[in-house]
Formats: sequence, C-alpha cells, structure tokens
Amino acid sequence: MGRPSDARERILSAGTALLGRGAYSSISVADICTAAGVPKGSFYYFFESKQAFALAVIARHWVTQKAQWAAALGGEGTPLERLHRLFDETTETQRVAQRDLGAVTGCLFGNLALELSAHDPVIKVELQRVFDEQATMVESVVQESIDADESAPQSAAGAARAIIAQLEGTVLFAKLLDDPEQVNRLWPNALLLLSAHVPATIA
Amino acid sequence: MGRPSDARERILSAGTALLGRGAYSSISVADICTAAGVPKGSFYYFFESKQAFALAVIARHWVTQKAQWAAALGGEGTPLERLHRLFDETTETQRVAQRDLGAVTGCLFGNLALELSAHDPVIKVELQRVFDEQATMVESVVQESIDADESAPQSAAGAARAIIAQLEGTVLFAKLLDDPEQVNRLWPNALLLLSAHVPATIA
Repeated sequence: MGRPSDARERILSAGTALLGRGAYSSISVADICTAAGVPKGSFYYFFESKQAFALAVIARHWVTQKAQWAAALGGEGTPLERLHRLFDETTETQRVAQRDLGAVTGCLFGNLALELSAHDPVIKVELQRVFDEQATMVESVVQESIDADESAPQSAAGAARAIIAQLEGTVLFAKLLDDPEQVNRLWPNALLLLSAHVPATIA
Repeated sequence: MGRPSDARERILSAGTALLGRGAYSSISVADICTAAGVPKGSFYYFFESKQAFALAVIARHWVTQKAQWAAALGGEGTPLERLHRLFDETTETQRVAQRDLGAVTGCLFGNLALELSAHDPVIKVELQRVFDEQATMVESVVQESIDADESAPQSAAGAARAIIAQLEGTVLFAKLLDDPEQVNRLWPNALLLLSAHVPATIA
C-alpha cells in the first residue's frame, strides 16, 4: 500500500469499475478493498460509511466527466459540431469500457439513479445536482446553436433536458445489448429534438 | 396462506413492488417472503432459484404491460392519438406508484437492465426480448401514422427505438426527481423524433 492518498484513489477507482458491472447494494466494502488491493481497515479510514464512499465516487466521476464535457463542448467548431463531438466521445467511452472492463458499463449516474432514488435521499440529491449541471452545459451549447441559426427548438432548456434523457435511454440500450455503437443513434435523434436546420441524415 | 397459486402470485406481486424501490441483488428471498406474507420455504416450492423468480417477475409484468400497451395503441383515434394515450397511461402508472408505493418506481425492465446486463446473460436476453416487443408495437403504430400522413420519420423502426429510449430516459428522470409529471415531456419530444406534421406545441 502506497501513500494514503493513493489508497483512497485506488478505492474510488476500483469502486467506480465495480459499479459499472453490478448494483451498489450488491458490492461489499470487502469487495471494494479486494479490488483496490488495500486492507479493509483503510476503507473506513477514508470513508465514514458506504454512503460517504458513494458520494465520493459520484463527485470524482463528475469532476472527470465534467472536464471532458467542457473540453468537447468548448473546443473548435460550430455549436452543433461540438455537441456531436460530445456524443462521439460518449460512444468511445463505452467502447473503452467494453474493451477494458469486459462489458458496456453505461452511465454511472443513471445506474445509481435507478437503483437508489427511491430510498437514499442524500445520494438522490447529489445525482440531481450532477444531471442539472449536465443539462446546463448542454443548454448553453444549444443556445449557441440557436443564436448561430443552426437549430430552432422551442426552448434551449427543454431541448437540453430531452437530449440528456435520450442519452440516458440510448446508453441503457447500449448496456443491455453490450453494444457501444448503439450510442451512434444519439446524434440524428438529438438533431430532431433540437429542430436542427441540418437534416438528421447528414449525421 | 391460501391456495398455492395465490402464494405464487403474492410472491411475484411483492417482488415486483420491492424491485421498484431497490436493487434486485439487495432483495433477499426472506425479504420477498416477508413482504408476500408467505413462509420462506414456499419460495423454493415455486422457484428453483432467485434468477427463476426474476424471470417470472419479468414475464408476469410484461404480460400485464403488453395488454395495456395493446389496448392503448389499438383503441379509438388516429395513430398519433393512440401513441399519446400510451404515454398518458405511462404517466398515470408512475402517479399510482408514487401514491401506493411511496415513490415513483420507474420502469421495472429499465431498472433490471442497468443492474443486471453486465453479469446475468439469461436475464439480459429476456429483457432484450421485452424491449424488442415494445419497439415492434411502437413501430407498428408509427408505420400507421406514416401511412396516415401524420408523421414522416426516416424509418418507422428507427423512430420507434428512439421513442423507447426517450421513454426510458424520461422515466429515469421521473424516478430521480420522484415526479411522475416529468413523463409529460415525452409527448412533445416523441413528435419531434417522429418528424410529426403536428407541431410539438399542440401537446
């Protein structure tokens, strides 16, 4: 076991991978520590409870994903090109999961939302916050695409939420079929949800 | 405990309710039997394993839901009016769950798909079959709407899959927010995914 900070990171990294394959409630602290290669006692040195661990997994995953989203949405290209890049990277993320972890893992936040919303109000609120931030980021690029006369949805906020819902549903099917390429369906459907001026076939 | 067939039905009914609140892997056979009000031994009289129970829950739920879908999609009205009715009934199902079970339970099939796809190939295949049948039912009414010149998607099959994905993503947010009315967003977005000739605002 290296420095304490390494052990914490290894616990979070191993926990994130385990949550891509199975339910939060099916994964024991012992499972997490075994996968992380740390002694069991170290878990409670870093996390006062399994819930605290879950909140840290969510926070860590969102820090990483938010940076990726910001890079994709804020880079070169027109607003719609940048949104398209975000979806291509989402497909690639699922390809990497399938290659490295043995199966499409889906969306960590969606997995936890369906499992825990009904009985863990603390985690539920944290997931709501993440999805709100996702929607705000997409809304911003949608507003840019409206301003650039690339699209004409009824409202940027409504279109952003519809796109996030389409993303979650599409990733669910990618996981169910263990097929990352399902995520390619997202782009033409997003163009329709945006009332984009480019035809959906161009995608 | 009544007739054996009553006990089996009570186990399946209680199990379905429990699966709306928590993960499959977090629910023990003892939990299910307690909720069903049956002795634990009776579980293994009816089901040789927890997996066999899960497959029976899926089959029973789909028999019920398929009949509801067929009634909604096959009743009075234009093809799009019938599709709209299906979504209204989906909203109502989540309202009833919130009222009777204390929280929006989401979609049983979506919940199980995210939890089990990566490590239970038998259940995964059964869920794929259910979603395929759902897509076929929606595709049929979409084709009718195309024939009636109500909509003009690139393909009826592709639009049907996009609508099912939108449904799953929207129901995820209804569960995350414990708000059945989120499902009302489905209709205007489905009209966009269908390239419907009626404006989405009419919804």
